[in-house]
Amino acid sequence: MKLWDKGIDIDKKIEKFTVGNDREIDIHIAKYDIQASAAHAKMLESVGLISADELQLLQHQFKIMSKQVENGEFKIESQFEDVHSKIEFELIQKLGDVGRKIHTARSRNDQVLVALHLYYREQLQQIKILSHEFFETLLSLAEKHKNKVLPGYTHLQVAMPSSFGLWFSAYAEQLIDDVYVLDAAIKTVDQNPLGSAAGYGSSFPIDRTITTQELGFSTLKYNVVAAQMSRGKSERTIASALGSICNTLSRFAMDICLYTSQNFDFISFPDQLTTGSSIMPHKKNPDVFELIRGKSNKIQALHSEMLLITNNLPSGYHRDYQLLKENMISGIEECSSILEIFKYSIQQIQVKTIDIKDPKYLYMYSVDQINALVEQGMSFREAYQKIGEQVQSGTYKAGQSKPHTHIGSIGNLCLENIRKKFPN
Amino acid sequence: MKLWDKGIDIDKKIEKFTVGNDREIDIHIAKYDIQASAAHAKMLESVGLISADELQLLQHQFKIMSKQVENGEFKIESQFEDVHSKIEFELIQKLGDVGRKIHTARSRNDQVLVALHLYYREQLQQIKILSHEFFETLLSLAEKHKNKVLPGYTHLQVAMPSSFGLWFSAYAEQLIDDVYVLDAAIKTVDQNPLGSAAGYGSSFPIDRTITTQELGFSTLKYNVVAAQMSRGKSERTIASALGSICNTLSRFAMDICLYTSQNFDFISFPDQLTTGSSIMPHKKNPDVFELIRGKSNKIQALHSEMLLITNNLPSGYHRDYQLLKENMISGIEECSSILEIFKYSIQQIQVKTIDIKDPKYLYMYSVDQINALVEQGMSFREAYQKIGEQVQSGTYKAGQSKPHTHIGSIGNLCLENIRKKFPN
Amino acid sequence: MKLWDKGIDIDKKIEKFTVGNDREIDIHIAKYDIQASAAHAKMLESVGLISADELQLLQHQFKIMSKQVENGEFKIESQFEDVHSKIEFELIQKLGDVGRKIHTARSRNDQVLVALHLYYREQLQQIKILSHEFFETLLSLAEKHKNKVLPGYTHLQVAMPSSFGLWFSAYAEQLIDDVYVLDAAIKTVDQNPLGSAAGYGSSFPIDRTITTQELGFSTLKYNVVAAQMSRGKSERTIASALGSICNTLSRFAMDICLYTSQNFDFISFPDQLTTGSSIMPHKKNPDVFELIRGKSNKIQALHSEMLLITNNLPSGYHRDYQLLKENMISGIEECSSILEIFKYSIQQIQVKTIDIKDPKYLYMYSVDQINALVEQGMSFREAYQKIGEQVQSGTYKAGQSKPHTHIGSIGNLCLENIRKKFPN
Amino acid sequence: MKLWDKGIDIDKKIEKFTVGNDREIDIHIAKYDIQASAAHAKMLESVGLISADELQLLQHQFKIMSKQVENGEFKIESQFEDVHSKIEFELIQKLGDVGRKIHTARSRNDQVLVALHLYYREQLQQIKILSHEFFETLLSLAEKHKNKVLPGYTHLQVAMPSSFGLWFSAYAEQLIDDVYVLDAAIKTVDQNPLGSAAGYGSSFPIDRTITTQELGFSTLKYNVVAAQMSRGKSERTIASALGSICNTLSRFAMDICLYTSQNFDFISFPDQLTTGSSIMPHKKNPDVFELIRGKSNKIQALHSEMLLITNNLPSGYHRDYQLLKENMISGIEECSSILEIFKYSIQQIQVKTIDIKDPKYLYMYSVDQINALVEQGMSFREAYQKIGEQVQSGTYKAGQSKPHTHIGSIGNLCLENIRKKFPN
Repeated sequence: MKLWDKGIDIDKKIEKFTVGNDREIDIHIAKYDIQASAAHAKMLESVGLISADELQLLQHQFKIMSKQVENGEFKIESQFEDVHSKIEFELIQKLGDVGRKIHTARSRNDQVLVALHLYYREQLQQIKILSHEFFETLLSLAEKHKNKVLPGYTHLQVAMPSSFGLWFSAYAEQLIDDVYVLDAAIKTVDQNPLGSAAGYGSSFPIDRTITTQELGFSTLKYNVVAAQMSRGKSERTIASALGSICNTLSRFAMDICLYTSQNFDFISFPDQLTTGSSIMPHKKNPDVFELIRGKSNKIQALHSEMLLITNNLPSGYHRDYQLLKENMISGIEECSSILEIFKYSIQQIQVKTIDIKDPKYLYMYSVDQINALVEQGMSFREAYQKIGEQVQSGTYKAGQSKPHTHIGSIGNLCLENIRKKFPN
Repeated sequence: MKLWDKGIDIDKKIEKFTVGNDREIDIHIAKYDIQASAAHAKMLESVGLISADELQLLQHQFKIMSKQVENGEFKIESQFEDVHSKIEFELIQKLGDVGRKIHTARSRNDQVLVALHLYYREQLQQIKILSHEFFETLLSLAEKHKNKVLPGYTHLQVAMPSSFGLWFSAYAEQLIDDVYVLDAAIKTVDQNPLGSAAGYGSSFPIDRTITTQELGFSTLKYNVVAAQMSRGKSERTIASALGSICNTLSRFAMDICLYTSQNFDFISFPDQLTTGSSIMPHKKNPDVFELIRGKSNKIQALHSEMLLITNNLPSGYHRDYQLLKENMISGIEECSSILEIFKYSIQQIQVKTIDIKDPKYLYMYSVDQINALVEQGMSFREAYQKIGEQVQSGTYKAGQSKPHTHIGSIGNLCLENIRKKFPN
Repeated sequence: MKLWDKGIDIDKKIEKFTVGNDREIDIHIAKYDIQASAAHAKMLESVGLISADELQLLQHQFKIMSKQVENGEFKIESQFEDVHSKIEFELIQKLGDVGRKIHTARSRNDQVLVALHLYYREQLQQIKILSHEFFETLLSLAEKHKNKVLPGYTHLQVAMPSSFGLWFSAYAEQLIDDVYVLDAAIKTVDQNPLGSAAGYGSSFPIDRTITTQELGFSTLKYNVVAAQMSRGKSERTIASALGSICNTLSRFAMDICLYTSQNFDFISFPDQLTTGSSIMPHKKNPDVFELIRGKSNKIQALHSEMLLITNNLPSGYHRDYQLLKENMISGIEECSSILEIFKYSIQQIQVKTIDIKDPKYLYMYSVDQINALVEQGMSFREAYQKIGEQVQSGTYKAGQSKPHTHIGSIGNLCLENIRKKFPN
Repeated sequence: MKLWDKGIDIDKKIEKFTVGNDREIDIHIAKYDIQASAAHAKMLESVGLISADELQLLQHQFKIMSKQVENGEFKIESQFEDVHSKIEFELIQKLGDVGRKIHTARSRNDQVLVALHLYYREQLQQIKILSHEFFETLLSLAEKHKNKVLPGYTHLQVAMPSSFGLWFSAYAEQLIDDVYVLDAAIKTVDQNPLGSAAGYGSSFPIDRTITTQELGFSTLKYNVVAAQMSRGKSERTIASALGSICNTLSRFAMDICLYTSQNFDFISFPDQLTTGSSIMPHKKNPDVFELIRGKSNKIQALHSEMLLITNNLPSGYHRDYQLLKENMISGIEECSSILEIFKYSIQQIQVKTIDIKDPKYLYMYSVDQINALVEQGMSFREAYQKIGEQVQSGTYKAGQSKPHTHIGSIGNLCLENIRKKFPN
């Protein structure tokens, strides 16, 4: 059943190719299409395009369908092109002419656009919550391990003293920047596009403020052409926002994989979190963190996909936009699952005590020794050269560590300040 | 059942996250894992690691499994991590200790690597065949429509005379370049990686020439570390090769979408190939070509994904590689389906007769008029300026078209020469 | 001259390769390195690491250098590795031991990080201003041309009535979403990173609130490791923000190129804005808009570059980060120039009167006719089928246009509401 | 001076924006534009469009210009739009009407296309030579260090024995796959596009076989529309080929950076190859390898840029193509310089003797011990479980290494076979 059926047989091959796996994907947005259809019906009634009785009949059906979705009983059978066709068919089946009125003053482009806006908004808000939970987990770990020394590296070479406290809270603070971008993405989809119809509005005197209010949007995408153009554009922005979070997660996972290597041996995880090899009986591999890294990287690639699908297309709807949904939706759901599993796994981290007397860490305090000379009155550059000569000639001896006390240093993590920076 | 089971309970959440949807994806490579396992068994026998009797028992089981795959009856139940675990389990179940020997001198990394090589090789060869069919279709259309004028555009501005013959065969010849890249990709995967074990080879005196021959590989990936490093690398190369073909298809589809617009109106398609609108009853949209364009663009984005997953990883296997499979396999299958549907659809094209007397095409022959002046003895730059002044002052009159006869021009398409260029 | 000179000759080839064209690039950030060095000096004085007299001497030198930058007289000669070496050298040259103190409690990583933050912040704020000017230009054009009809397309097929007012203001409203992302990027770089030294802070009791205030940052990047990790991360976010703006510009430019084609012929530009052909004397090509499109697309590709350079690198500084600067800086400057030239060019647009009686626009009002039937009491789906049959059978006659009055439609552009949405 | 000057003043701002930095970029292709112009002149003479005397005059000028290019004396002054305008102007200046004939039967699109083909072909062939030299360097290092043990890692966890011989030659063999792709790119640009004029051929009876032979092309791009469409397409393919090489180089550089870390300490480089820190006097950083990695990653990003500029553009020339040149040309030159510096640096590597008795390498021979049990008659899976239990219970004792003898293993590197695989 197609909303645009004109009695012409569509080639079966073509139909299969064009419908693709829309039915499976659309299950994710069924809930939101029903929500938006209900809001649309209410608006139709308020402007006199349907009667109060008709509205009641429609609302009853929407309630039934919502329940079905909630219970996992909502199906899009193979005779339907998509969720939109299915819903209209149901209404006509149940309500006859009343059902035939639901599509008044709207278009399928409208429906999918508003349903996606609602889906994205809810999912991104959920990802913000999960990011916040992960952020808090990291701050707790930072607090717990704030006094444990960790060698700091630059160029992968031993450089200066760091700490586990600094390490955990660095990724926490980094996440704040990601949430700035996430908030921008949320704002982008928190604008009512409904009423744009096929992208050029309607000649019915519809009232878009009603649907805006009903669906809880903060504002409208006023211009109907702009509303349609947000297809692809929103997805690009969301892909970039998820990619931003995943960029942080991926690099954190890389550190973890490196630090669990026997050559670093800074941290470990309980056996239950590791996996083995089909051939080497001794292996306890950090697969979960490698997959966090890999899945995060995959999500970072979504940006290119969204761009390539839409780039250089003139304005107005194109069917290409249908393809934006699949990997966008699975990227969003994967991103949530990564955040959950990362939080769950990182809590089980075992932080080791690192032997900083080991010769490989010999020079870790060289700058502290320069600083001691500076405090005795030498200029920095002179002191640098003096210690440098000791290193060069092999006479350098590891000295005392000096306390680090300034804002954000190993001795003063400012966790409370970081906590307060997380956007509401 | 895990090949590396050591009696430790693995956290269920972690297991779900790490296994992902590997079972579904692995169905695509089951056939090849069985093929490679059979070759491996034969090799084991030839070097004395299993007996001739044991080989026969194993071969019998492989035959049964191959049949199951062929009939769509092969299943990877939820207790198995992947296809490799399933196959080894089956063999042990049926053959006891003989089954426990199959993993001698190999690793799971080995198995998935060789199975993917076999899968990729077969699929890419199939894509080459489909590309060739599409190429021939385009040449036929070029031949059929070689005398039909088409305005040629530069900067989307009417420029000079072209023809449908030139247009169809341009995309045909373009495909040849894509096949050069495809052939490189095929060479890349046509090298036996089996025997690399976990990436560092085996201390058993295995004979890799036997498996090379059994599996029909043109050569070996000799170095076992290089064999492992081809994970991600092959996928990058394949993504680029598919992307090359899809780049041609996507741009061709763009032309088609533009030329079916009422403002160009150069071509049309039967109603059965078009789709309608839920709101505008007059629409006959070229969705199939928009989806060819969009799906092709999606495949072009695979390159970024393959890169981002593997980039900057040190040598040696990482679990991230598991994630290369999913979109690579669906990209390969989508690419085949695009080529099939494009060939099928383009055959139904209706080429229109374009009214080149229409004022918008007035200047299409301006260069021919310059050339006529040149033939009368004027220098090119002078003739250019003379006609330019006529255009500027509004005195220009459209002249006669001159015949175009040189190699590759509208009057001399050289279809046979192009046909011969297609690589074997 | 190198800040880290230890008396070892560095291989000339290696030096050339590692320094690259840093000297030329660093000219762009010289101004900011001087600003930040001055703030650092002030802080050193306030915590007693240099005296008030020393501070005065340094400040005098910074003033001289600032002037040189302003007048374009600041040079980084070939004996210097980068701007940082040059500035420290100058100070030592002029002030002797006082100059040797400037590097106390900071690192070159620190310097480039804070200088880039200052540069990015200023440039992005400038781009926001330019975006706003472009936005206002579009709203003016929308107001001016609000009554001029433009055919609206879906699938590049004539669909429904649109207007130039709707078209111009659509791109204006679209820009608001881009500015949401831009604002997130500005927030990201509006955090003081100075004091992170080589990425692990300092053992001097520096006061980072002083430099925060001096440099006008809204907050600090507290954690010193997080500060360092923002290398690459900020660039990714900025690339995405510029890419967002450029995505809008590029698609707008595509529309313009299409609409200037003789086959659409909706708009034109004065001859002074067009360019010609070396061979076709009649050409007046919209090169400026093609280059806006192309340059915008190039900027959209920056995101991939920033990702690929930094992806999967463990925490801590890596020299790879040096490479983030070049294309980032030129992308930022190109983005400004695109916005300026687009504003300048679009103001000269000549909007044509489109003959909507032309047969190709026949069905443009088909939905209005359905709506008329609905107003007479027919259900939408029934009316759709009725008009559909007329189209099918060839009996359809173009009807009257109905007024479009709802929010954001052609008859009610809501320009003031859109104007108010632009973020402060 | 513009080839298309029609006496209309072009807006200065617009001119600056459209010309961009073409003059600087075009210096790279001046040599090839002259070559192709000379071939074009010869062809014009052979078909009677210019006389033998005119040809001689032109050839003399081309010789002079070639010399100027060779000596670095060729300039494109600011009054010229590009190299093509400059060359035609010079000819007219020196030869009057004879110069005005050079543009007969060609277009500027033609000129840049053929010049780029010639430039790309020569540069890619050079990159192939440099790749081969690097390949040979690696094979020599493999031979030299074939007996030095290196721990092999999977998941960054100590796995099995590897060797420096295996490590060096792995990257050598990997390069062969890259050269397959490079060869495809070379084939793509080794086809004569000259004669396509503005993309639709010429009405002069030109003889394209003459220019094909003169310029040493292996074949023609027959179809003139296909010739034009190769803009962007060739660049995509080249970007992918360079990216393939750079993918290998980047990952090799990552290994090097990791292995020079104190925590691995497998290799080192002479002080002359390292760089220092402005604050830490002990640092000897492997910047050259970090920059090889970073620059290689930047080149890998070129593919996205080439795609985004050209994607979804209809056929026919667009000015956007001008933008393909800049980063493509600098990418090509950077790729050559990376290969040179990598070869130069890697030759100076100092391979350390790794203490494999260190406890962190305890399990490196666990599979060899399983294999020993298998040779005593136990099935592989049983032996795996037995050793696994020893590891689990802490009773595992490191055993003897067994010899690895099979093709491509540490004991049998097959360097000669790998050498023979390198494509001619």
